Amino acid sequence: MRPDLLQSNERVDELYANNIKIIQSNEVFSFSLDAVLLAYFAQPILKPNGKIVDLCAGNGAIGLFLSAKSKAQIIEVEIQERLADMAKRSIKLNSLDKQIDVLNIDLNNVKNYIASDSVDTVTCNPPYFKNLITSKKNPNEYLAIARHEITVTLEQVIKETSSLLKMGGKFYMVHRPERFVEIIDLLRANRLAPKKIQMVYPKAGKEANMLLIEAIKDGKSGGVRFLEPIVVYKDNGEYTTKMQGILYGE
Amino acid sequence: MRPDLLQSNERVDELYANNIKIIQSNEVFSFSLDAVLLAYFAQPILKPNGKIVDLCAGNGAIGLFLSAKSKAQIIEVEIQERLADMAKRSIKLNSLDKQIDVLNIDLNNVKNYIASDSVDTVTCNPPYFKNLITSKKNPNEYLAIARHEITVTLEQVIKETSSLLKMGGKFYMVHRPERFVEIIDLLRANRLAPKKIQMVYPKAGKEANMLLIEAIKDGKSGGVRFLEPIVVYKDNGEYTTKMQGILYGE
Repeated sequence: MRPDLLQSNERVDELYANNIKIIQSNEVFSFSLDAVLLAYFAQPILKPNGKIVDLCAGNGAIGLFLSAKSKAQIIEVEIQERLADMAKRSIKLNSLDKQIDVLNIDLNNVKNYIASDSVDTVTCNPPYFKNLITSKKNPNEYLAIARHEITVTLEQVIKETSSLLKMGGKFYMVHRPERFVEIIDLLRANRLAPKKIQMVYPKAGKEANMLLIEAIKDGKSGGVRFLEPIVVYKDNGEYTTKMQGILYGE
Repeated sequence: MRPDLLQSNERVDELYANNIKIIQSNEVFSFSLDAVLLAYFAQPILKPNGKIVDLCAGNGAIGLFLSAKSKAQIIEVEIQERLADMAKRSIKLNSLDKQIDVLNIDLNNVKNYIASDSVDTVTCNPPYFKNLITSKKNPNEYLAIARHEITVTLEQVIKETSSLLKMGGKFYMVHRPERFVEIIDLLRANRLAPKKIQMVYPKAGKEANMLLIEAIKDGKSGGVRFLEPIVVYKDNGEYTTKMQGILYGE
């Protein structure tokens, strides 16, 4: 551990499945199961000259997790300076400086930093909730921006993703089932063909509260596959065997 | 048992969850798990002056199962004379003549028999496969028509469903996940808002092979819910507890 990398009210969490250490802070941002599941679901390009971009990167958890799967270059895009800084320190903590970069920019300007049609894999765990006047938002601005579409909308995420990706490049996103139809429409309006969907259910008898989706730029339409269900908890509140494998290694 | 109701190469199967007896024939048509799951998933109108229509009724299994849930009038629409006749005999066998009628007609003409905007609930277990020149079809014409879009397409099913339903009326369909995006598009193009989806997985670690969908005529868009997953078999090949409940009663 390098205590010089930690600021006050920060801690280091470890994802045991891949031995990645991540600087977290409840006051600012902590990655959640959503990030773990997205990194598990994603099938990023693997080769060293490939390029992966993680949008809405937060404290960089997804990019860090993907480095355990892929040798490709990884670029994390995060608008919030404080979070981008945490991501940079986590990258140092894991000695991944050569593989992962952080861009502390507005994702709407990403084309000024990364060439269009140059990226093999884009991942994103975007803010889930529309920024309606009536929305109850977290008084903590860091968390509000991470959860609500304040600095970026789903449409902007998908539009920029499509610009970045090469033909045949793949997009992986985690989102909420209630926005499913909108997601499908926006993907197709931006040359992204939905191909695989994996529903995540908190318990066996409960409605899905998360969905993982893969789309391919200029992919053939039709033929969507719904992968095996992920059930997070057993009835007794423990993680299911499947989820334990994802979190702690199989 | 009334042997006078049975023809050669026919048998009577019983769904123990609701004690409905159904005349079946492997040579002509046997209902499958799909029909059982659709009847389980559907929330038909319940009151005696309500009206339920089952399209692509086959041997009438879904209408018969729904009679165990609802007191509404049920009309089964089936184009194949031999199957419509089996359905009529099953209705007699269960003494449900007063509740269920069979229309042996082409569903494309259904508006000539049932008034538009008059139906509370429509159910349908349609042919799943497109009628492509390259499709391998069953040489048995009864089964080919039940499985392939030979006499009716998904678009026609959904168009006629929308005409039949009252505003706020509900449509329940079972279909294949690979046609999911097309289903969502056709529903919305015909004033039907997808509301609930339930994915069916053959086993815990397998991709979904069936989906159940509810849509409401002129319903608000957005807010799709994915109900708890249905897993049909345990790893050892036995039905799961959930599926046993659906088949044999809970």
